[in-house]
Amino acid sequence: MNDITPTGRTRVRRRAQRGSYDRALVNAILDEALVYHVGFVVDGQPFVLPMAYARIGDQLYLHGAVANRMLKALGSGAPACVTVTLLDGLVLARSAFHQSVNYRSVVILGTAREVTDAGEKRAALDALTEHLAPGRLAEIRAPSEEEMRATTVLAIPVNEVSAKVRSGPPVDDEADLAMTCWAGVVPLRLEPQAPVTDGHVPPGVEAPPVERFRRGAR
Amino acid sequence: MNDITPTGRTRVRRRAQRGSYDRALVNAILDEALVYHVGFVVDGQPFVLPMAYARIGDQLYLHGAVANRMLKALGSGAPACVTVTLLDGLVLARSAFHQSVNYRSVVILGTAREVTDAGEKRAALDALTEHLAPGRLAEIRAPSEEEMRATTVLAIPVNEVSAKVRSGPPVDDEADLAMTCWAGVVPLRLEPQAPVTDGHVPPGVEAPPVERFRRGAR
Repeated sequence: MNDITPTGRTRVRRRAQRGSYDRALVNAILDEALVYHVGFVVDGQPFVLPMAYARIGDQLYLHGAVANRMLKALGSGAPACVTVTLLDGLVLARSAFHQSVNYRSVVILGTAREVTDAGEKRAALDALTEHLAPGRLAEIRAPSEEEMRATTVLAIPVNEVSAKVRSGPPVDDEADLAMTCWAGVVPLRLEPQAPVTDGHVPPGVEAPPVERFRRGAR
Repeated sequence: MNDITPTGRTRVRRRAQRGSYDRALVNAILDEALVYHVGFVVDGQPFVLPMAYARIGDQLYLHGAVANRMLKALGSGAPACVTVTLLDGLVLARSAFHQSVNYRSVVILGTAREVTDAGEKRAALDALTEHLAPGRLAEIRAPSEEEMRATTVLAIPVNEVSAKVRSGPPVDDEADLAMTCWAGVVPLRLEPQAPVTDGHVPPGVEAPPVERFRRGAR
């Protein structure tokens, strides 16, 4: 299902069969990943930085300290590119030429706006907390007025967007299929490990089960 | 140890104590990660794309089809930014404001050059294969002359570079430490899963042990 209209800038050209304009796929990738890489330009020089984020509907929210130079640049209307990549596997083919990686990625082009409405800002910050660890919001202290003022929240619309996916086994040249080396895929997963309790948790408070922090639909 | 001299563009400003200019740390991050995100500018619009890469000494190599638009833009001398991020953990603090992520990241600013020397090009392609799966080069077919001609290899110097690292437990406000909720770190690791053999591997050829594909020094 392709329900997003690609533009000249988001239509996937290299290996176009891997491109997708399906909003459900885009959303699933955005919701599974933990950080995105945001690109912006200062004096002709591109900068790319990793950022935590959260999605609500077709808006992507990011946040940071009010003094943050990147947020200032983005919030003043500079064009941005947001890219999210999930690594799904090593694709080990029979030739060096066909080695590859299985992945799901999303590229969003757009311009950020600063979120000034108090209700939207609070909803975005809540979503950022829940994106990191679903259910966490109910367990911890909400932002104070002072913390809200110290935080800039920006929104980028998820409209000019495309996804790109590689999955499945290696694609080898016919002549190489008779080789006797092993070939296939080594799946990769970002796995949560046993929680490490900090020094101030009172005795008797149990660490949450690690399964709670597993990402995506497995 | 800070043996890289930061420039005005690579000196870490936000949370400067997390910045590092230690080449051994930079190299360890580059060698553990599987993909980087490269940013470049076309008509004022930044684009950020995930790419496989490999490091040899202080050169970072990337490759792609000769017709690749991004490689053409980068190879013609456009300024680039290469960012590599490793996610190490969810930092679950007692307040929404102090939620965080443990990570190691590297940001490189520079200009790419096309690799035209046949020896350097072959060494770069070999390193790309080995970066994905150490030892793989000895098991598979090397690139043919035709495949070499169909591939563009670019090099970006790892000189104007900084690393940034967050590690350790949450940093909570003093007043929140008496809360009874759980707090701490959920470590994250990109874990290889059991290899999936493709349909053309002859009977009797064993899949390699999964440990071979674990990244970094654990």
